[in-house]
Parts: sequence; structure tokens; C-alpha cells
Amino acid sequence: MIIVLQKNIGDTQREAIRSFLVKKGYTVKEIIGQEETVFGAVGQSTVDIREVEMLEGVASVVPISKPYKLASRELKKEDTIVSVGKVKIGGNRIAIFAGPCAVESREQIMSIAESVREAGAVILRGGAFKPRTSPYAFQGLGEEGLQYLKEAGEKFGMPIISEVVNPSDVPMMAKYLDMFQIGARNMQNFELLKVVGKTGMPVLLKRGLCATIEEWLMAAEYLMSSGTDQVVLCERGIRTYERATRNTLDISAIPMVQKMTHLPVIGDPSHATGVRDMVSPMSLALVASGASGLIVEVHNHPEKAFSDGPQSLYPSQFEKLMRDIQALSSVVGKSLE
Amino acid sequence: MIIVLQKNIGDTQREAIRSFLVKKGYTVKEIIGQEETVFGAVGQSTVDIREVEMLEGVASVVPISKPYKLASRELKKEDTIVSVGKVKIGGNRIAIFAGPCAVESREQIMSIAESVREAGAVILRGGAFKPRTSPYAFQGLGEEGLQYLKEAGEKFGMPIISEVVNPSDVPMMAKYLDMFQIGARNMQNFELLKVVGKTGMPVLLKRGLCATIEEWLMAAEYLMSSGTDQVVLCERGIRTYERATRNTLDISAIPMVQKMTHLPVIGDPSHATGVRDMVSPMSLALVASGASGLIVEVHNHPEKAFSDGPQSLYPSQFEKLMRDIQALSSVVGKSLE
Amino acid sequence: MIIVLQKNIGDTQREAIRSFLVKKGYTVKEIIGQEETVFGAVGQSTVDIREVEMLEGVASVVPISKPYKLASRELKKEDTIVSVGKVKIGGNRIAIFAGPCAVESREQIMSIAESVREAGAVILRGGAFKPRTSPYAFQGLGEEGLQYLKEAGEKFGMPIISEVVNPSDVPMMAKYLDMFQIGARNMQNFELLKVVGKTGMPVLLKRGLCATIEEWLMAAEYLMSSGTDQVVLCERGIRTYERATRNTLDISAIPMVQKMTHLPVIGDPSHATGVRDMVSPMSLALVASGASGLIVEVHNHPEKAFSDGPQSLYPSQFEKLMRDIQALSSVVGKSLE
Amino acid sequence: MIIVLQKNIGDTQREAIRSFLVKKGYTVKEIIGQEETVFGAVGQSTVDIREVEMLEGVASVVPISKPYKLASRELKKEDTIVSVGKVKIGGNRIAIFAGPCAVESREQIMSIAESVREAGAVILRGGAFKPRTSPYAFQGLGEEGLQYLKEAGEKFGMPIISEVVNPSDVPMMAKYLDMFQIGARNMQNFELLKVVGKTGMPVLLKRGLCATIEEWLMAAEYLMSSGTDQVVLCERGIRTYERATRNTLDISAIPMVQKMTHLPVIGDPSHATGVRDMVSPMSLALVASGASGLIVEVHNHPEKAFSDGPQSLYPSQFEKLMRDIQALSSVVGKSLE
Repeated sequence: MIIVLQKNIGDTQREAIRSFLVKKGYTVKEIIGQEETVFGAVGQSTVDIREVEMLEGVASVVPISKPYKLASRELKKEDTIVSVGKVKIGGNRIAIFAGPCAVESREQIMSIAESVREAGAVILRGGAFKPRTSPYAFQGLGEEGLQYLKEAGEKFGMPIISEVVNPSDVPMMAKYLDMFQIGARNMQNFELLKVVGKTGMPVLLKRGLCATIEEWLMAAEYLMSSGTDQVVLCERGIRTYERATRNTLDISAIPMVQKMTHLPVIGDPSHATGVRDMVSPMSLALVASGASGLIVEVHNHPEKAFSDGPQSLYPSQFEKLMRDIQALSSVVGKSLE
Repeated sequence: MIIVLQKNIGDTQREAIRSFLVKKGYTVKEIIGQEETVFGAVGQSTVDIREVEMLEGVASVVPISKPYKLASRELKKEDTIVSVGKVKIGGNRIAIFAGPCAVESREQIMSIAESVREAGAVILRGGAFKPRTSPYAFQGLGEEGLQYLKEAGEKFGMPIISEVVNPSDVPMMAKYLDMFQIGARNMQNFELLKVVGKTGMPVLLKRGLCATIEEWLMAAEYLMSSGTDQVVLCERGIRTYERATRNTLDISAIPMVQKMTHLPVIGDPSHATGVRDMVSPMSLALVASGASGLIVEVHNHPEKAFSDGPQSLYPSQFEKLMRDIQALSSVVGKSLE
Repeated sequence: MIIVLQKNIGDTQREAIRSFLVKKGYTVKEIIGQEETVFGAVGQSTVDIREVEMLEGVASVVPISKPYKLASRELKKEDTIVSVGKVKIGGNRIAIFAGPCAVESREQIMSIAESVREAGAVILRGGAFKPRTSPYAFQGLGEEGLQYLKEAGEKFGMPIISEVVNPSDVPMMAKYLDMFQIGARNMQNFELLKVVGKTGMPVLLKRGLCATIEEWLMAAEYLMSSGTDQVVLCERGIRTYERATRNTLDISAIPMVQKMTHLPVIGDPSHATGVRDMVSPMSLALVASGASGLIVEVHNHPEKAFSDGPQSLYPSQFEKLMRDIQALSSVVGKSLE
Repeated sequence: MIIVLQKNIGDTQREAIRSFLVKKGYTVKEIIGQEETVFGAVGQSTVDIREVEMLEGVASVVPISKPYKLASRELKKEDTIVSVGKVKIGGNRIAIFAGPCAVESREQIMSIAESVREAGAVILRGGAFKPRTSPYAFQGLGEEGLQYLKEAGEKFGMPIISEVVNPSDVPMMAKYLDMFQIGARNMQNFELLKVVGKTGMPVLLKRGLCATIEEWLMAAEYLMSSGTDQVVLCERGIRTYERATRNTLDISAIPMVQKMTHLPVIGDPSHATGVRDMVSPMSLALVASGASGLIVEVHNHPEKAFSDGPQSLYPSQFEKLMRDIQALSSVVGKSLE
């Protein structure tokens, strides 16, 4: 922690600050500059930095240690490769997750699974518990949906992922899933993170709608400190003042996150944009920026989907997108998983 | 729903749009303007408006119905008065909630309860389950904390409120509390909202850090449609680009919310600002803007608090604030509850 | 400047960083902590901190000196009192600026001036050059408007203020005005700031729609370093994701700015909210938070105003507001100028 | 304009609203729905919609006409191709602008021009008048810089572009430049837009840091209604709550803008990110999303640049980037200009 002192500080105040820090267990070193004097306070102690900011004579306080450890690139230099069944995510691979927003019926998920697998997707997605903004909207098929999803995954050789919204559902869901998904609205639902982390299973952690990159990594830290080291991050758009687009897909976050953490990061072009015709350009932009994969909504009959039809690709659009990603992959030095 | 057609639309496209809407169950009326032609589609049907936006020849679509009903001022013109024990919130009253961030010990909560009661607070707050950004930080005393809080509330004649973070805690907490608090991070934790709403008990619903006013009212709608009509809203600062202050307390939301809903709205100056010396000016600003009350953090020894000490008022500061609110109340035509 | 080194840094890298800093003219001190090592670099030199951030082995860099000097509270501890004619702004005064959005005719401004003066306003505002979002909207009366404004100000004993939008208008406008206004859109129009600053006249500097408090103070620094020390800041709402209100009036900025600078800060409730019925609650909230005054739009016939009629108060509403501010002033230890 | 009436509106209020609209020159049609009744008001009249919103009995008002006309895709269906000297921008071309942040000397600009030309850039950029946040920073060489820039452009066969910050500089700058640049801070400096538009010359219009896409198109409308139809838009990052990256490059804006306007849109990866190692991934992402080009900062000695060295590519990095863009162009069905 670096403490910048006010310019006109007197000796008594300066010593009071030093003594406060020493009492809290810090070792204090002083740097006298031409304009400012600073204290460097080092040690294992933790103090709310606002406590120090409020001491008389303090101009500002700057924390030094990062609040996340396990997720940090400093702790682990090489890329983490996450294994979901036989699928590997991270490094020089581009892994494509695809499937409908929600599992709606056995037939629906079997049909979609077949077509996305053929086009090159490696993980099958499908919601069974849907967090909906309106209490009056379709909330998912529940466990029945997971059964269909599992059946489809097994038939077409794809590990499966689905969103969890309630800590008490975790044991039941763990029996079906290969990977848990934490949605944007639950990124800081710490009770849920702790329970999911304890399973030790792979987790896809979506970024909250107004989460900073640091808060996102802290949420990963919750998962990791609870027991899993198989975390994949997912950028899905943030909320900004711009309303012509649904969210602002923060593509600059991709290379920035890769500097800060060893965990793989993928992108979700479907929720970010909310409309079908922007999904392909944003998919390509994500891959071009260095993302380790995508999670894309595909539906065999988007116009009849129970939820999010407008952002779901038709199977033929998804095939075209997969060919474009294939062509793009060599430009960025990667290959499709 | 209003559908604005593109200027150069042909007859075939126009009729295709009309027929789509009719099939979905709408009655369609046409308004031909000098620059634009619009369709008005009325009826009980619901369709994802993005479906309509994607039809060829459609320039834009404007929803008309509000997504919230029970919370709407149109449904209920007069102010809702929420009863928490003997305390009433709403109308021309200013109700002050006060207490520590977290219950830390029996002695601590008893001491604080006594001093805030004497100064004029009517509801006692204190956290027992703390949602913390870091997995390594103090997470609260749990049920033991609720026992102390209840004892203090009973001794000093104040109903009590505490934050709930896990749906499975609700039955246990209901035995202690007079009012549930839903924190900002859980405003869209719909599983939690449904379970808390079912208790029928009063709920304080904090606004999420990046929730629009409409989303906030939709969260209230979740509570109300699950079984409670005793909801108090709480503005606690939103996230903006400005980082010199911790959050941006959205005081303009107070009069705006009062136009949109019949539910009372109060403000939280402590979490909004994060620092003690801004709590009093923001408290006065909230009351001046028309808020129905405040929830303020007070600690007998802020410098020793387990969490959020820097934003907690000293008891003497809280007393001074209560006197200022008293003086201010007549300017806004209200009185302290 | 504080340079945090990466944990695993080798001696060669460390010495390369030290030597880079020394070459740039800094004196370097080292603080070795248990987790991190930091360099403190002191001296008069200036270097783009991104240069240092990119050196190998550097984890992060923290600037210490504030970029604004003349505007800083550290340079000048006591409040600056700005004089506009016989009116004083700052300290324990509340100064009310009022008048129409735009000067529309001699009769209009004379009538409004009379009524706002009677109600207690001390400075008369009125736009002559209007920066409008649409090129097809009313752009103001120009110099003719200033003549009417000056006549009204003289007749009713009020100094006058009007917005300047073009550097080449400054000499002409200086002949009429007592105070220049820099609008939100021009806060970082540095060419304009330099020319206006050179006049040495008082300036009202509105905060840009997405300006940080620091950038706002840097704009004040432009004015001050160009030749005026008579700067009044004006908070007028910032852009956030919330669209139910026009802008988000950042009332927390008022006490924060007062810590950072000695310059007075007032608020503009009219542009912040855009609608008449929110002007009074936001006015009271601004004064309650400690603002040194307000600039309020008042029109004798808002329904016929050429611009911004909907946010203009009727004279009778303004009178009521002035009485409420009078009552509120003693609560915050101030009095109306 | 669509006027949604309150549910419980009486006949008198309804007729008062209708009569208000008719007096303003509108033709009014009524649509009676099951939940809401709306008025459609059509005609050439213009009224501040807030006027209507404030009428008693009105729930909300929805504008229908877009405020921009000349820039609208509805007015002109086919892509505008902008000509800057012999260079064409728009359609299936990818045009690369490159050069230093500021012209620093004759030698510097000649050297950089040579290397970017060789690598494939088609337009040469270089600042002569720099809008700097701090009054104490390097402000550019002025006209001397333009002379060097022109000399370099002629020698290496590239049209030149430079930023204009003061309306009074326009005639002088028009003698040197092939294209004007309006910077982000001046996007709503309407006086400047009007004077630059009048020259009829090509203009690159950067998006303001917190400008909506609609405001950006309105600024283009200012240029177009003043006399030029040669406008290229440039996305350069917006301000959001995220501070780990300098700005948030709004790549979703690229396909969205292309739906709304016929004008070409390019991206600026250098100012968006502020750091060299993020320029290449963001450049590729912009091209992948469909941008018509890029404006990239390149410096022969970034470590000695007078401004923005840290975000300037080395010539060798720029060459590599050009090769990657070449490879990427066929994936998006375009070719390098």
C-alpha cells in the first residue's frame, strides 16, 4: 500500500500516520519527492484502505496487491487448458459451444444437436432453468430439460453445459452436466459460486453486465478457492449508455483478460447483440481478437423458439459461420478444436 | 405495439407484416403520415418485439405496455404504506433505518441499537450473511447474528431488517426478522425473489448496481407476484464511468420512481458513497429530493468494524444528522416517523 | 510515480527499469515488501506513464502528482469567492442564476428578468448562441440577444451571463457580458477555453456529459493558466446507462469537488432533468448537498419557448422554489446571496 | 409521433390532448387497444415531445421520424464511396490510414510516410494542432507541421489528413489537406462542423467519447447540411465504467451503423486502447466486424514520440499487421484499397 501525504503536512500528523500503520502491522518506508512525500507500507496485514484515506494528512492511498491470487497470470504463467469431457479449451484451440437458448423438447434438442455437431460445434448448450426478467415469462423445463440435453449430448458425442441458478439444484445438475454455466446476473451470487466451485467440475463464468474485469476475476477466485481449477471466462457484453445495440460487446476485454489471468476466455455474440444479423460479424471479431472460443445460440426454428428466437442462428447460418471461423483461424495462429 | 414501416415499403411487404401480426392474434390499425406509415397492433398477445423488428420492411418497433403491472402507479394511484411491525413507511413520513454493516457481537449490536434509537431511528439494521467481493473477507456471524439482532430490536423497541443471500435460508430467517433485505447484487436473483416474496413479509429491495429503473420495478414485480405487497425500494448508487466517488447516487431516480410506482422509495447514503464525510450531505440531498427515508450505517467503533467501518457514522454524527433531517422535513412537507 | 514490479522479476530486468528511470531524470527508491517490490520515482521529470508500464518486469504504474495545480485545494486551502459585478459566489452564500434558455425578444427577457429578480435571483442568464444537436433547430438571436440581455440586466440590477461557442465571438461578447458560460459540449474545446481564459473575466464552466471530475478540473486549469482566476464549476448531469431520466445529476460530485478544489461549484437542475416537475426536488437536493448556488431556467410562457420550454419553470414555480431554498439554507448553514 | 394515453383517462382530458395536437398542426388518429389507447399524430409540424409528455393524461410519447435525414440509409440505399484524392473509401474496400500522432519534424514524417506507404497504407495522417487534456502538454507544430505533412504525402503518393480544432484555421488548413479530421472532443462543436462542412471537402468524423450512434449521425448531418457529402465515420472507443482498458472500443457499433447510414465507417484501434500490444488484435477485430478501414498510429521511434508514443506501432509491427489484414480481407469478402 502506498500512502501519498498532503503537501503541507506537519511532523505530528506524519508521525501519527506512521504510527497508525505500524500498529496495524506494517513496515513503513518513506520516499521524499520534490512535490510529494509517500509512505510505502508493506506486510501481510490487511486494512480497509478507506481507513487510511481518512487519516488527517493523507492525500490518497494506492493498493498494490491484486485481490485475486489463484486466477492471476503472475501465479501461473502458462495458459490453463480446461478439459470438458474429451474437449480441451485454451491455448491455440478455438472451441465452439452451440445449441438453443432453452431446451424445449426432446425432438428440438436432438435436431439442433445433430446439426451443430455436423457443422463443427464441440460442446452442446441448452438452458433448463432460465432466469427471466419478467416473472410472467417461460422459465425452462427444469430437470426434464437436462435429461433431454444429456441424451442429445451422448448421441452426438458432445459434452453438455447448462446454466445453474439455485445453489440447491447443484447436486442434481451435477449428475447430468459436464460443465456448469454461471450466468451474467449471478456472477456475484457468491453462495452459488461457492457451491458450484465445491463440485470441482468445469465452470463457464459469464461476466456480469456491469462487472469490471477485476470483479470478474474475483468471481473466478471464489470458484477456484472453493475447489475447482477448471474455469472458462465468457465475455457477453456490458451495459453502457448506448442503446442502439442491446449491450456493448467488450472485445478489448479479450486481450486484456489474457494478460491478467491464465484462464481461457471465450465470447458470447448472441446475448451481446440480441439480433441474428449481428451474431456473425461479432463472432468473427471475437475470434480475430484472440478469443479461445464462442458460445452461440442456434435453433432449428428460431421463429418458434420459446425464448431468444431473434438472436438464434438458423442451422445454415451457423454452418456458414463455422466455415468463416475455419478460414479465420489460421490468420490468428489457431485451429478449431 | 407500434410498428414503424420503412418509407419505401411495397404493398406486398406491408401486407406480409400485417398478416404476421394478425396470425399472432393482434388487431392491426394503420396510420399513414406524411413521412412515415405506422401500424398499431393491439391485443393480449405477446410476441418478442425483436421478431417483428426483423420482418422485412419494418423500420422500428415500439412497445406500449409496461412490463410491470402490480408495481405500477397506473394500477394503484395512491401511495402504498408499508408496515414493518408498528413502523409505517411511505406517504408523508420519513423513516430512518440505522445500525451497523454487520452484527459483530451481542455487545456491539446492543450498544449501537441503544444509541440509534435514542437519536430517532425506527428500524434496526445489521448484516448476518455478508456477500463480499473477496472470498477471503469476513462473511458474517450467520444465525447467531440474527439472534443478537432480534434481542437488540426487542429491547429497544425497533423492528429489525437483515440481508438474505440464499433461498434456503429464508425459512430460518423469517423466524427472526420483521423485514427482509435484498441486496444490490441479488436484485435479479430471481430464485431468491420468488422464495422471499412467498413469505408475504415486508421486503427492502435495493437497486442493482447497473439496473435500470424499469428492471428494478420488474424485480419488485417478482416479489409482488410471488405473494407480498409490502415492498420498499432503496436507491443505493449506480455504476458510472466516474471513479472519484465510489458509486453515483442517482438522486434523480427518487422523483422519477415516485411517478412510476406507488411503492415507497428510500435511499442508502452509506453504500453509495463509501466514505463517512459524504454520508450526511447525501442524506440531506435524498430527503430534500423527496425520499421516504434512509438506511444509514452507524457503528460505535467504526475504526474497529469488521466491515465497512469507513462509511459508518459515529453515534454523535448520526445524532447531528437526525437533527438536520428534522429541520429539513418541514421544508419538504413531511415529518419523521 | 510508483512502479510496482512483477513478483518473479530478475535482477537484470529490475536494473534495466531503474536505469530507464534514472536516465529520464528521476531519483529512484526501492521498497521491498513481502509480496511486491515497488520503486518510487521522484523528480520534476515528466514521462508518459504508459512508457513505463510497457517496460518488461513492470506490473503497474501509479501516478502520484495531480495533473491540475492552480485549481487544487492543496495549492489554496481557503474557498475562492468569485465576484460577478457586485454578486459574490462561494463560501457560505447560495447564489441563484435564473432566466430563459434563450433570449427570444426584448419583451421576453425584460419580463422574465423582472420576475426572477423579484423572486430573489441575483444573476440573469439567457442564451444568444445555442449549440443545438440538430442543424435544423433554432440557433439563437446572436449579438441582438446580448443587447437585450444587457439592457434587462442593467434595468433590474443583475450581472448577466451567456454561453460562448466560438473563439472568434469572445471579443464581441466581452463587451456585453459580466460572466462567460462554457457549455457541457465545449468543456474540452481547448481553443475556446484559452481565448475565454485570456479575458480574465469570470467564467461558469459546465461539466461535460461524460467528463470525470479530474477532467473537469483540468478544463478549469486551462482557463486559469490562460489568465482568469474567477472560475465557477457547474454540475449539470452526466450520461449513464439510465434513460428514464434525461441525464443522471451527479449530486455526489458536489461534496467531492469541494474536497478537491477551492473553486465554488453550483448545479443546473434544468438541463440535468429536462422536465419541469423534477427541477424543484433536484434544486433542493443540490442545495442540501452543499452546492454554492443554482442556475435555473425560467420562462414567462414556457409553452411558447423557442427551446427547452418543457424544462423551464413558470415564474410562480420559481418564486415557490426560492422560498423553499430560503428555508433550507439555514439547515446547511448558508444564506442566499 | 405516437402518444400513449393513461389507462384511466377521462373524455375531457382525451379531447384536450387531441385539440392541443390539432392546434399544433397534426392530424390525429386514435387506436383503442385492450390495455392502452394511443394517438398517432402525423404531419410536418415539429413540437418538443416533452411538451406533449407533460399534458395531463399522457403516459408516454414516442417519436417516429429519425432526426437525421441526409445521413440516413433510408434516403440513400447504396453505400457512399468517399474519394480522397485517388483513394476510395467504402463498399468492398479496406482503406488504411497511418502515420504518427503528431508531426514532429520534417525528417520524422518523411521517414514514417515512407515506411507506412511501403507496408500498404493509402492515406497519411499526422497531427499539427493537438487538443491535449493538459494545458502544459505539447500542442503541435501548427502550420509548419502541415507543410511537412503535405511534402511527405506528395513525395510518397498519399493524400493527407489532419485534425482541425478551431473554425478560424479552416481556410488555411484547406490549402494543405485532402481530408479534414474532426476529433472525438469536437464531435459536437457545431461551429466547427458548420465551417468544415462548407468547404465541401472530405471529412473523417470521430465518434465522441460518450456520443450515441444517433448523435454521431446528427453530427454527420451537420457536416452534410453545411455542404459536404464526403463523410467517413470513425469509431474510436467510448467511455464506460471499465477502467482496465483505456476506452471500450464499441465494435458492435460497426454493423449497427452500417444498417443506419450509407456513409462508410472505419475504426481507430490506437486511441481506443492506448497501448501498442492491443492495437493489432483490435485492428483485426474491427476488420472482421466489417469496418471499411482503419486509422493507425505508427512512429519510427515511439519511445521518443512527443505524444502517444505508447500506442504507436513500430514500422515492423505495422507491416506484420498489414499482412494479417490482407489475409483476413478475403474472409470478409473485401480487398485492401
